[in-house]
Amino acid sequence: MRKVFQAELHQVGEELIEISALVTDAIEKANQAFTGADVELAQEVIAADARIDFLQNDLDERAIDILALQGPVASDLRMIVGSLRMSASLERMGDLARHIAQLARLRFPAKVIPASLTVTFDELAALDIKISKQLGELLETRNLELVTEIAASNARIDELHSSVFKAIAAADWNESAATTVDVTLASRYFERFGDHGVSVARKVSYLVTGQWQPEAHA
Amino acid sequence: MRKVFQAELHQVGEELIEISALVTDAIEKANQAFTGADVELAQEVIAADARIDFLQNDLDERAIDILALQGPVASDLRMIVGSLRMSASLERMGDLARHIAQLARLRFPAKVIPASLTVTFDELAALDIKISKQLGELLETRNLELVTEIAASNARIDELHSSVFKAIAAADWNESAATTVDVTLASRYFERFGDHGVSVARKVSYLVTGQWQPEAHA
Repeated sequence: MRKVFQAELHQVGEELIEISALVTDAIEKANQAFTGADVELAQEVIAADARIDFLQNDLDERAIDILALQGPVASDLRMIVGSLRMSASLERMGDLARHIAQLARLRFPAKVIPASLTVTFDELAALDIKISKQLGELLETRNLELVTEIAASNARIDELHSSVFKAIAAADWNESAATTVDVTLASRYFERFGDHGVSVARKVSYLVTGQWQPEAHA
Repeated sequence: MRKVFQAELHQVGEELIEISALVTDAIEKANQAFTGADVELAQEVIAADARIDFLQNDLDERAIDILALQGPVASDLRMIVGSLRMSASLERMGDLARHIAQLARLRFPAKVIPASLTVTFDELAALDIKISKQLGELLETRNLELVTEIAASNARIDELHSSVFKAIAAADWNESAATTVDVTLASRYFERFGDHGVSVARKVSYLVTGQWQPEAHA
């Protein structure tokens, strides 16, 4: 029984890693579609999000079965409850990658981001991709140094997100209102993606250390 | 033992209702601050959000203790897991009310929304407030007709949210880029609030019926 239980716990952990890999794939491709105005790739990201949603449901059902049938306690219980929360955040990261791809599709064949902000958005996207990859690594290795790095990347994302609004408010901003909307939403999507990444990373940290630090306001 | 367990389950339910009442208070006051450019009220909403966060943590710890100590099964287990998820959505609704209050504070003494869109935003806010009130009622009464009403309100919110972007893209939109940003973010906050409301309502429905229908994409 104990062996089956450990195998089931392990399976939940593996499924989290699998979802995380799909999220990384989604944000990488969404960004390529976004910067390259590639409508086919955008379509691919949008379609692939259903798989993330499916896996999240599957993981959640599995976790609830474990709770019902095994009555886990202590660190095993924390791991199961933590997995339910992490899967919700990862699913949301998948949604945000999909939203970015949807913006690319909406504006095709034009690009979403005006030339003056491409450097900023390239850095935002690179940081989201880095966070997503490090999250996958963190879920596999439980190396908590990655939690600090993920938080640092997210702090930089917050700066970039603010800088986007400063650029829009500046006197030399000459873009259309529709572009202003797109830039605002895109910046918000990239920023929320990072927040969810930090949220998952902090949960892994909690599972490893048993110490919880309340989340800063997002 | 069984009696203590039922009392603990009841306590979790009561705490959800309490959080829901605070969220309703937050969205009502946030909207007053937002439409009336009332910086003191905005400040109050921003400060009060810490209480929602505290109660969410408290509820979650209580729920995890019940899982650890009581090993609930079947509908009791569903109720506990459902509560963990509902508390996360309610906490997020509190954050969104705070974001709306923060926009009011940022633009004070000016109003955030230009005259041409006040009717739209009044309706958005009224629908969010209605959803939040009905959610509180649903948590207390488990009257599932409210789930349908909440979903209908949210469908109307989505229409209004789209209409905001159409208004911004129209030829006669003459507002500044900063106002365009504010309107975009505010509309997104009101829209997300409704989505989370539907998400909580669907979880109540699941607890009552045991039937889960996958969520539509947000």
